[in-house]
Amino acid sequence: MSLLVVGTVAFDAIETPFGKTDKILGGAATYIGLAASYFTKNINLVSVVGGDFPADNIKMLNKHHVNTDGLQVKTNEKTFFWSGKYHNDMNNRDTITTELNVLETFNPIVPDSYQDCELLMLGNLSPQVQLNVLAQLKTRPKLIVLDTMNFWMEIALPQLMEIISKVDVLTVNDAEARQLSGEYSLVKAAQKILKMGPKYLIIKKGEHGALLFNKEQVFYAPALPLEEVFDPTGAGDSFAGGFIGYLAQTKDISFDNMKRAIIFGSATASFCVEKFGTQNLEGLTQKQVDERVQEFISLVQFDISLV
Amino acid sequence: MSLLVVGTVAFDAIETPFGKTDKILGGAATYIGLAASYFTKNINLVSVVGGDFPADNIKMLNKHHVNTDGLQVKTNEKTFFWSGKYHNDMNNRDTITTELNVLETFNPIVPDSYQDCELLMLGNLSPQVQLNVLAQLKTRPKLIVLDTMNFWMEIALPQLMEIISKVDVLTVNDAEARQLSGEYSLVKAAQKILKMGPKYLIIKKGEHGALLFNKEQVFYAPALPLEEVFDPTGAGDSFAGGFIGYLAQTKDISFDNMKRAIIFGSATASFCVEKFGTQNLEGLTQKQVDERVQEFISLVQFDISLV
Repeated sequence: MSLLVVGTVAFDAIETPFGKTDKILGGAATYIGLAASYFTKNINLVSVVGGDFPADNIKMLNKHHVNTDGLQVKTNEKTFFWSGKYHNDMNNRDTITTELNVLETFNPIVPDSYQDCELLMLGNLSPQVQLNVLAQLKTRPKLIVLDTMNFWMEIALPQLMEIISKVDVLTVNDAEARQLSGEYSLVKAAQKILKMGPKYLIIKKGEHGALLFNKEQVFYAPALPLEEVFDPTGAGDSFAGGFIGYLAQTKDISFDNMKRAIIFGSATASFCVEKFGTQNLEGLTQKQVDERVQEFISLVQFDISLV
Repeated sequence: MSLLVVGTVAFDAIETPFGKTDKILGGAATYIGLAASYFTKNINLVSVVGGDFPADNIKMLNKHHVNTDGLQVKTNEKTFFWSGKYHNDMNNRDTITTELNVLETFNPIVPDSYQDCELLMLGNLSPQVQLNVLAQLKTRPKLIVLDTMNFWMEIALPQLMEIISKVDVLTVNDAEARQLSGEYSLVKAAQKILKMGPKYLIIKKGEHGALLFNKEQVFYAPALPLEEVFDPTGAGDSFAGGFIGYLAQTKDISFDNMKRAIIFGSATASFCVEKFGTQNLEGLTQKQVDERVQEFISLVQFDISLV
């Protein structure tokens, strides 16, 4: 299945307890596209960068089967830049700098060649931009996955609720699920959020794994316990990219296949956090991915026969 | 397999966002014994209470196959009392009162009829009392499980390290694993703790599930996402009781069977937190337990065949 990815392509500067980076490649769509590339070769990107964005990065994305016809390059402007510093527990971070630059006036354009994409991944961006993309599609994709964050709940709730009502799968973290629903129990939060429109909800719990809900069922996938987490940046986006990439590869959007997709997404995310930025995701082999998935299977499998 | 349980039998007064109780039955050994009673009928208790402890509570324990020959009743003293208040997130609590009473001078006596118990569960108590129990056993049990808490790491570390070096399975929560090892990564923490003596380590992560480690393997069992958590008191002890009760029932102390035991322990703990105190654990049916275990299986099962 062909995949359309919308999201930021950016520069990040990251500090963690293990070190710090200068401006490196980042952005939700970058992580999503790289992660998905281990499962599907038909990835179409809609995003925007400035004249300061290196051609080598675009080439690297193309090498990973990411079509960049929908990547606008605004030569006289600068690429979106974010810098942040993670706390010692790696679960919390402070934003140091956010320079919107090209994002400030971003008007996404979906190229004609991208029409009829069967899967749409709306990475974290302003809900209005996400709505603009959806409005340009002549045929509704078979599955629309939306990622968002607390920031948009605070400054653009009406538009966020509108885009949420139009998608099939929403992905948020546990704090965001609580904020969006006003419920502390994630079970109750999920019930409320599923009434807002989506048929499926994925709650990302970082090192504690991820939950998949529909109205009748729930699935809980753990995260792999890792010796070292070097840099959590992009973990959620790598998870989403692995998830939707696996759906694209297997051409199956059932709940049962989404469970598998969550395991593949979690495996991809576990690679992401082991090195700074996109470093690990740029050079994985199929064998590494398969071995990591096998580790997940061993991690959770047990065999109980009830009489 | 016969089971010996050592731990507190107490009164608790609990306040949660959902309500508060007067003095009700509590204590680590109470929860462990009740939880284990759904899996095995040969449970032997070593503990102490005061003259204020109702005979009805002892009868209730006996009805749950808990032999109380090793329960000392000090008629002129008072039962251990703890009261606490949970925060809104239910993951943290403040202790309001701790009245040690009979615990202050507790000298455990293992009755002759308890000798040759095959499984020993040392519930949370002073490490010196745990050592005293172990010293009284003429034959080392086939499996010794130890629970402890951060308090003993702070005030009795040498004795704690001694008892840890003598047991097979240690259970602690994630914060305690980090405190005991000085490592933030739970994988590194487990490696260090397994060098202190135990062959197995269980890290309890509350609503995020539990991890089982030995030197070569790791298993991650989720917790069931619940609509309401009324009262987390006793969750860890119910988990331990279900875990060791299942081992007693199945007479199998292999890593693979411990994985199953963790699922049964998690199921038992999930009942515990749905009502105040021991209320739910006093009246479960086998059918309820089996259905809950089936929910756990559905919650985590997926089917991936790698080519």
